Amino acid sequence: MEDRFIPLSVPNLKGKELEYVTHAVETEWVSTAGPYVTDFEAAVAKYVGVPRAVSCQSGTAGLHVALRLCGVRAGDLVIVPTLTFIAAVNPVRYQGADPVFMDCDRSLCMDPVKLRSFCETECELRDYSSASAGDEQKSAQGSGPFLYHKKTGRRVPALVVVHVFGNMADMIAILEIAKEYHPKVVEDATEALGTHYTSDPEIPEHFRGAFAGTMGDIGVYSFNGNKIITTGGGGMIVSKDEEILTHAKHLTTQAKSDEQNFIHDEVGYNYRLTNLQAALGLAQLEQLEDFIKVKQANYEVYREALEGIPGLELLDVRPHIRSNRWFYALCVRKPYPMTGMELIGLLKSHKIQSRPIWGLIHEQLPYEGSLTSEMTEAPRYHSEVVNLPCSTSLTQEDAKYVAKVIRRGT
Amino acid sequence: MEDRFIPLSVPNLKGKELEYVTHAVETEWVSTAGPYVTDFEAAVAKYVGVPRAVSCQSGTAGLHVALRLCGVRAGDLVIVPTLTFIAAVNPVRYQGADPVFMDCDRSLCMDPVKLRSFCETECELRDYSSASAGDEQKSAQGSGPFLYHKKTGRRVPALVVVHVFGNMADMIAILEIAKEYHPKVVEDATEALGTHYTSDPEIPEHFRGAFAGTMGDIGVYSFNGNKIITTGGGGMIVSKDEEILTHAKHLTTQAKSDEQNFIHDEVGYNYRLTNLQAALGLAQLEQLEDFIKVKQANYEVYREALEGIPGLELLDVRPHIRSNRWFYALCVRKPYPMTGMELIGLLKSHKIQSRPIWGLIHEQLPYEGSLTSEMTEAPRYHSEVVNLPCSTSLTQEDAKYVAKVIRRGT
Repeated sequence: MEDRFIPLSVPNLKGKELEYVTHAVETEWVSTAGPYVTDFEAAVAKYVGVPRAVSCQSGTAGLHVALRLCGVRAGDLVIVPTLTFIAAVNPVRYQGADPVFMDCDRSLCMDPVKLRSFCETECELRDYSSASAGDEQKSAQGSGPFLYHKKTGRRVPALVVVHVFGNMADMIAILEIAKEYHPKVVEDATEALGTHYTSDPEIPEHFRGAFAGTMGDIGVYSFNGNKIITTGGGGMIVSKDEEILTHAKHLTTQAKSDEQNFIHDEVGYNYRLTNLQAALGLAQLEQLEDFIKVKQANYEVYREALEGIPGLELLDVRPHIRSNRWFYALCVRKPYPMTGMELIGLLKSHKIQSRPIWGLIHEQLPYEGSLTSEMTEAPRYHSEVVNLPCSTSLTQEDAKYVAKVIRRGT
Repeated sequence: MEDRFIPLSVPNLKGKELEYVTHAVETEWVSTAGPYVTDFEAAVAKYVGVPRAVSCQSGTAGLHVALRLCGVRAGDLVIVPTLTFIAAVNPVRYQGADPVFMDCDRSLCMDPVKLRSFCETECELRDYSSASAGDEQKSAQGSGPFLYHKKTGRRVPALVVVHVFGNMADMIAILEIAKEYHPKVVEDATEALGTHYTSDPEIPEHFRGAFAGTMGDIGVYSFNGNKIITTGGGGMIVSKDEEILTHAKHLTTQAKSDEQNFIHDEVGYNYRLTNLQAALGLAQLEQLEDFIKVKQANYEVYREALEGIPGLELLDVRPHIRSNRWFYALCVRKPYPMTGMELIGLLKSHKIQSRPIWGLIHEQLPYEGSLTSEMTEAPRYHSEVVNLPCSTSLTQEDAKYVAKVIRRGT
């Protein structure tokens, strides 16, 4: 076994992928029309319990459309986490807006305490009538009040919350804040398809069983190659608001108001998922619950095998969450004898692929000088977290071997 | 035969598509890494005679990246045609810039006479030192002089020329103007993969044999489902400048400057083509020259069968062009007894799919009030052109039948 390469996270195509893909090629329905697109959209919608879903080319594309649908425009501010993949933030710039970065809490997701503090102390609510927005905005956002950043006078029409590694952000607290301060809530659930609140009595009734991505105004999933299910590359936009989804479909398909005569009523995008990709996705979705079982079982193997090693903490998820367990996050601290980066090197020398968490986005070149909350947790997790192999094809023996190498490091 | 539906333009997957796609699925390389992506990029580059090509998710995505690479930024003006699919224009807005619309000539492509007139009379060259651009711009565009629109004081850093329906725009004239007035030239060759100048002595030596897409600063191909070859959805960026392509690859892959540590040095995009899509593309490219032979032969069938019908003109391509003959454009005028739209209806009643040309973009809602050249040709072609079935699976009998229905209309 020691000779085999253990990848971090690779696709697992042992279901009906080839059957469906072959059908798409043989019927010559490989492009943006075709039955798999609608079937896949319907299947995802049913799985997460919303009436409809709109497919797109990537999670990034979905997040871009979501911001557009929230009325984000040039000059606005959008609240985002600093500890996430940069695709959650770049779409803010695609719209000509700027991000405001928030710290994370122990879930690695946006800290609702710091979010509230930002809204409370640095922002204020203004009535629409006193705001400087044009008519276009009025129709996109309805009537006020709207959140404004006091010092810059800029609108704060939306926030993006990311369900990091398949954990769930504290949606109960975040939606309470959003209700009070009126930013639209985009749920970046690109890593969290399958994660949901349990039905435990501790969870408010309204949230029981709710899936990540379905609680805010708009949610986005990703089917990138490293995700729990893949279409090669792809994404899905969900919402409980049918009107938003109709508009999402319009924007992802070049905003044709008259298909026959090529008339377009707004600036749209070519963000369509193809039938070939959707064929793959449908076969993958059929296996999602099995994949989550494997991920959960391998999490338990890691947990047991790494227990009691001083300085190591395999992060768990927030209470009352059924997580998809997409990525395993191991915190590496003293007195463990090496840093996270050194551990990654050790694993690599044993042909085991692992990785550090993302670089904090507020520190990166394109976002230098941005507004931020106080940053206490994210920098710490940034220096500590190592992601361990988590493919659904990872065997329990693989996981035990990885843990053995980590233990040997001590 | 009369009972069979004849589509406008559908994929033709009779080559090694299934073999390559099966290989991608069976090896589980379906996402953005994998051998087909690099093989497909190399094969397209070799085919059009450039050192390298960078794949992307769509022609639209390629055009967006091309504008970014030309230094187009918020507040700029970009010269575009009005008679084209809107995907050639929307990326201007993605960058926060605005289009200036040009009329077409008899090739349906941008009229170089009106282009020159705009540059000459409405614009002026300014030295960099007298311009208001920041440092970022300096590095993106080199040293001046730069073209400015006099009345608005806005920069005109680029123009987008579209090779409509697989014809070739007058690149010899357009590049002469670009040399004089310094806008970067983006060639939208999304419809023109395979189109090139002949080696006829009438063509300046430098242009002989040159492929559409390879003559300007950056060229873009599309592999959408209706194109001459398809990847389901996809595109390709080409240039003779290796540095531009390295930057294009960086931007299409989220601009990671440190892959391991997730450090990004600019705002990038998730515009990657997947291995699964590239597998399809490679198999398609192997058949491209055969597809062009079929398209050319069917053009000749239409031409002969429609000859001599008063009021009908099947448009030919510019002289000294080997065209890929992607779309056939039939002009319908008096004394033909019906309008183009009526003819489309007649064909539809015979289960033959055809379509009008695109709505003029300068007249569409998102672009109302834009700067334009005088518009004399585009409105005329807009009212006259009907596109006839042109799939590579169209048989000569199909084409004759279509022509028979059109003739019966008289």
